[in-house]
Amino acid sequence: MRSIDVCLSPELISLYDIKGRIIVVIDILRATSCMTTAFAHGVKSILPVASLEECRKLKNEGFTCAAERDGKKEDGFDLGNSPFSYMEENLKDQNIAMTTTNGTLAITLSKDAKQVIVGSFLNLSALVDYLSGQNDNIILLCSGWKGKVNLEDSIFAGAVIEALLGKFAMECDAPLLAMHLYKAAKYDMADFLKDSSHVKRLRKLNIQEDIVFCLTKDKYDVIPVLQGKVLVKMEIQDVVA
Amino acid sequence: MRSIDVCLSPELISLYDIKGRIIVVIDILRATSCMTTAFAHGVKSILPVASLEECRKLKNEGFTCAAERDGKKEDGFDLGNSPFSYMEENLKDQNIAMTTTNGTLAITLSKDAKQVIVGSFLNLSALVDYLSGQNDNIILLCSGWKGKVNLEDSIFAGAVIEALLGKFAMECDAPLLAMHLYKAAKYDMADFLKDSSHVKRLRKLNIQEDIVFCLTKDKYDVIPVLQGKVLVKMEIQDVVA
Repeated sequence: MRSIDVCLSPELISLYDIKGRIIVVIDILRATSCMTTAFAHGVKSILPVASLEECRKLKNEGFTCAAERDGKKEDGFDLGNSPFSYMEENLKDQNIAMTTTNGTLAITLSKDAKQVIVGSFLNLSALVDYLSGQNDNIILLCSGWKGKVNLEDSIFAGAVIEALLGKFAMECDAPLLAMHLYKAAKYDMADFLKDSSHVKRLRKLNIQEDIVFCLTKDKYDVIPVLQGKVLVKMEIQDVVA
Repeated sequence: MRSIDVCLSPELISLYDIKGRIIVVIDILRATSCMTTAFAHGVKSILPVASLEECRKLKNEGFTCAAERDGKKEDGFDLGNSPFSYMEENLKDQNIAMTTTNGTLAITLSKDAKQVIVGSFLNLSALVDYLSGQNDNIILLCSGWKGKVNLEDSIFAGAVIEALLGKFAMECDAPLLAMHLYKAAKYDMADFLKDSSHVKRLRKLNIQEDIVFCLTKDKYDVIPVLQGKVLVKMEIQDVVA
């Protein structure tokens, strides 16, 4: 039987054998929600980069540059980490270079996997449908917050586990833990998350709208997938395969 | 306000500043349950050691030697990791050297903390009473399974968090995660844990009785505390302070 596992923090990824697996990178608030939104609105590619410097330099190479640190847009960049800013008409067919506090690092750590795709509540059903049709083992990688676990990514992992229940064997306790958490949260996720550290952090930044949006299920049916070093939109024949 | 945090795996402890804090080491199935049981039954001290070799050598120095790997008692040692074996009359006033798969490692990693104590459901209320009276910040350290998170240690951490709610500030999402998990589990912990990896592992070893015992709350009022390199029973004036 195919198996599925959950890695609650990038700091734990070395305990997992990622070779030959599909890794789903999760950073609900807000990197992977932004990526999903961007591809749904016609962005051509997203290059995840580790540092602000690296990202800044890519401006000269024709990239639209996005940078977030500690929840805030960095000065001098075109975009931050609000999903609404990725809906702009002028981003259509553009190549974006993006660096965020947690999500882009999780993608970098996943590069040796067989396939790296991006998950968010916004594309939950598309993701679950795609994973259901695959024969490879899966790791759901939560980006967390600076190495520590967070609630929103763990809950999303649990939503995927619940949706795939019975189709994959669980490899350790982390999938169970995530699923139980999602079961406790699912009837009112915004309320469940109101005391979480990142929601409190973002509340100070006055972006309640972003949070509500990032917790919306199935708004889009796109799946961002890593091709070489860049994320692109997965072709539809792959999504429905 | 005093703060409390949860570290869901020893692999994450480097992200926590342990200096000046009280660390509660948790290994419900079964190391910290055994330690609690041992002191409740008159054992004098327990020396946690990392390796089987190290443990074996201590036999010649007058120690009773306990060793568990992968849930099983190692051949050639006096004791394994069943709490019932720590109730024996002949262990009274004895010094035990102990090595286990996860719990003793978590204790070793905690040694730079201000104080290291041992928690289990067996001494939950005694532990909560003690922590309530302290002014230091606290970290609940789950031993997990070979670096990965596990359900039973996370649930116990959640039980402590729930009991201390309002008395300590939570430092990140891990305490919330643990508390929500405990809330989902608390009305039937054995049922909740039946699919967990370690319960399945132990079930194969036919030690259902151990599991039920380790999930029993408040059987003892002792708190094991690290003094130098050995665990001893905390003196009662400290417990009620």
